[in-house]
Amino acid sequence: MPLIDQFTTQYGLVRKIDAFGYLAQLNSDSSLERKHGKVVLVTADTPLKASRGEGKTTTTIALIDALRAKGIDAAAVLRQPSMGITAAGSKGGASGGGKASLTHPELVDWGLCGEMTAIAAAQNLLVSFAEKAVDEGLLDTILTPRVSEVPSRSLRQIAVDYGKGNVPERVVLTPTSELMQIVVLSRSMAEIGERVAAMIAGTKDGKPVKYGEFIDLWRITNILLDAVKPALTETQAGSPVYVHCGPFANVSIGIPSLVSVEMACALHDVVVVEAGYGADAGAQKWLDIACRDYGAQWPSAAVIVTRATTWRDDPALSWRYPFHVQRLEGLDIPTFPLINLWEGEDGEIASLRETAKTLEFRDPIIGNLFRDGGDALGDQLGGFIDALQNGETPAQPHSHRGMSLTENAKWVAEHAYGVPAERVLLKDGFSASLAQARDLCADAGLYLDELAFVAVKSPAVMTDNDSAPEAEHTVTLKKVEVHAGAGLVQVNLTTSLTTPMPKIV
Amino acid sequence: MPLIDQFTTQYGLVRKIDAFGYLAQLNSDSSLERKHGKVVLVTADTPLKASRGEGKTTTTIALIDALRAKGIDAAAVLRQPSMGITAAGSKGGASGGGKASLTHPELVDWGLCGEMTAIAAAQNLLVSFAEKAVDEGLLDTILTPRVSEVPSRSLRQIAVDYGKGNVPERVVLTPTSELMQIVVLSRSMAEIGERVAAMIAGTKDGKPVKYGEFIDLWRITNILLDAVKPALTETQAGSPVYVHCGPFANVSIGIPSLVSVEMACALHDVVVVEAGYGADAGAQKWLDIACRDYGAQWPSAAVIVTRATTWRDDPALSWRYPFHVQRLEGLDIPTFPLINLWEGEDGEIASLRETAKTLEFRDPIIGNLFRDGGDALGDQLGGFIDALQNGETPAQPHSHRGMSLTENAKWVAEHAYGVPAERVLLKDGFSASLAQARDLCADAGLYLDELAFVAVKSPAVMTDNDSAPEAEHTVTLKKVEVHAGAGLVQVNLTTSLTTPMPKIV
Repeated sequence: MPLIDQFTTQYGLVRKIDAFGYLAQLNSDSSLERKHGKVVLVTADTPLKASRGEGKTTTTIALIDALRAKGIDAAAVLRQPSMGITAAGSKGGASGGGKASLTHPELVDWGLCGEMTAIAAAQNLLVSFAEKAVDEGLLDTILTPRVSEVPSRSLRQIAVDYGKGNVPERVVLTPTSELMQIVVLSRSMAEIGERVAAMIAGTKDGKPVKYGEFIDLWRITNILLDAVKPALTETQAGSPVYVHCGPFANVSIGIPSLVSVEMACALHDVVVVEAGYGADAGAQKWLDIACRDYGAQWPSAAVIVTRATTWRDDPALSWRYPFHVQRLEGLDIPTFPLINLWEGEDGEIASLRETAKTLEFRDPIIGNLFRDGGDALGDQLGGFIDALQNGETPAQPHSHRGMSLTENAKWVAEHAYGVPAERVLLKDGFSASLAQARDLCADAGLYLDELAFVAVKSPAVMTDNDSAPEAEHTVTLKKVEVHAGAGLVQVNLTTSLTTPMPKIV
Repeated sequence: MPLIDQFTTQYGLVRKIDAFGYLAQLNSDSSLERKHGKVVLVTADTPLKASRGEGKTTTTIALIDALRAKGIDAAAVLRQPSMGITAAGSKGGASGGGKASLTHPELVDWGLCGEMTAIAAAQNLLVSFAEKAVDEGLLDTILTPRVSEVPSRSLRQIAVDYGKGNVPERVVLTPTSELMQIVVLSRSMAEIGERVAAMIAGTKDGKPVKYGEFIDLWRITNILLDAVKPALTETQAGSPVYVHCGPFANVSIGIPSLVSVEMACALHDVVVVEAGYGADAGAQKWLDIACRDYGAQWPSAAVIVTRATTWRDDPALSWRYPFHVQRLEGLDIPTFPLINLWEGEDGEIASLRETAKTLEFRDPIIGNLFRDGGDALGDQLGGFIDALQNGETPAQPHSHRGMSLTENAKWVAEHAYGVPAERVLLKDGFSASLAQARDLCADAGLYLDELAFVAVKSPAVMTDNDSAPEAEHTVTLKKVEVHAGAGLVQVNLTTSLTTPMPKIV
């Protein structure tokens, strides 16, 4: 029996895998059989609006189906869609479409095995314990927001204890929560416990108080017993797809759990990791947070998805797609443009290739993936497979930990958004917010600059005004929020609004 | 392969059963093999306080273990504990204890397969759709409360859209929600859909608007795909235990799903159904709502659990236990007192038997079930088994539908709490609340008196003051709330506070 089977249990129509247990076993015995799969990053152009997807999941599914049809052991790792979004209709499903679909997309779209809701319950239970700590005089203020798996405009600003205390609070969507970040980044239940204990619950007399000072950790970790296990499902063509945690790269880190990718790499030769929304969000976070700061594998290739129309529907934004391609190529990641055609666009292939040549891209991969699935890609993957099989060993990138927060923000603005340091602006109040965060960390025994930098912004913009001439692009830094347990510092940037709690549409 | 296996899937350490599908199949073909198990109700004395359990679940587990040791095919149906309560520590687990335990109590106590959180997400999504309906001018007010799987004192009264609209709302615990009631009472997904459509979302120009008028039902029912399936787990002795839905008999109906009991009756000869808190709450609701109004099986026997100390710790309340025993006996249900001993109480057995004789009970069943499990009961079950095997066919009780709400309240007060009709008092405002509910129903095309009557009260009291002399016992009716989708009308009664949203302790 393969080792992985000992850590796999059926869970309705999917299987759940104890990735923590499997990886611990592998790490404890180097003689055990395992693969050393390479990571391929699938990301996309920056969307014209948050609700308009380019087709990352559809591409991911078609890509592994096409690779497996060629005898290559490929698998995909997807983030679990936020049920609130898929059920509430703003994006529809988030599990591919047409011939590039999962066998049971309804499961993935509608709550899978309760992972999101378990994480929500755990974070909300922390808030309830903090509330009790306030009653007992251990805390004055609570810094952890409540979360909801269901979007609701009116929950953005609430008052609890209404009519008595009128304590202002905010409710954010589950995938944006610090607990979700902790599950994504941790490699054992013990690490989850340590990180939860290190979360700053709030302050007492202005000084930070951590959850570890007043809660029983097992009350939280028990809720997560099943939620920490990635789910294994498959495409309609039978290719393996792991689904675990972490959408919402706009206001959080937007990447699947690190252990789901590491487990997949031990089991398959090629592991396609989806990171969105656009390359400026999910891919930036995979590279600059997961790889640089948390030891995830640097991609051996990347695919950047776009639609034929995205280049044209807003000419003022057409600079973004080539920017993304060149950025990843500049990091020595072989980067393949993929144009996901819609019905009636087959006739445009020649002109799209021409445009790609003008832009000095690699040969683009073009197909109607909804209609044709992996068959659309089969004869176009030569260069891609060559890059994977004969490319260099993945890089060991330098961590950004220790770089000052403002320098880090400028680095990201320059490299991921194309805005030079001198055009990174500080909004009124940013410096005070930064100083407050720095003090909070210092009082908690942490050094702010040792936290990994998380950009928080609208998924549809890279700068304060993407439509402005390039020389006028700016990025405004607005405020700082510490997630000490996850080891992250979040910085809101660009003048656009961010919405950690969407409304249903 | 037994028919049930076609409807059973492994779900981690438990199995989940498509009870809807199995029962539909059985009902469609009378030649299929099935059993016609009898229902045994396990209930308890009214607790001295909500957080002090008598040991219903421990008893249920010990009882089926003891029956199976004698070759009787017995199974239990438990309600799923509310994770918020078990995780937040006020009651500890709710899955037995000691030798009378489940193999995986942590699963049942900590969210099982996400059933509660899925039901919470579905109810909250309804509220979000209602909020959108308000924005679109279809609704003026929302009558559906939001729910939380985690208790939090400060969520009892909140304002949403704080700083702008300041719309007052309340948040209640998931098991108290109308959606939980709908899942408990429905016998198909189609019925769930119909009942959700019939829920009154709120009002427009004072007239009720139902969810069916503005939502896509599939967005709600898809969330419930797995939540509607009972879980099958087992005791440490290997006896089958079905767990599904519905705790909180204080502010809701507090019974497991009807289909979980009906499925168990088709598979086993004896089905022990747990209904709590005390006999005045869960048992009253099983008998007067599930059996009388929703066609569930009338019990062939009952066990009323108490602790040796409960009779003594508050002498002013010692009338309650004999009242419960006599009430159920008066309904021709053979009713067995069961005294759940704690450590150090073995020496009290003789005097407890003496007390039981004085009270003209049947021979009580006495044992330390935590320490000894089913072994404690083995040689004391003669009368119980005789009643099951040779007792009368379960009754076909008359429904209360159509009885006027106030008459129904007086009937319950008299029969379940021992308070005669003339001492049922109407609090100021009750009549107005009743009239409003009656109008709401009429405008929705419903007749209020056709809804099943649900008493909402503190689990620890039966009257306004249980410690007063019997002749002074009163029951005050306070307010009325319509759950049109579930087919229920809830009436708050007694002067004690009810807490649909507890705090953590």
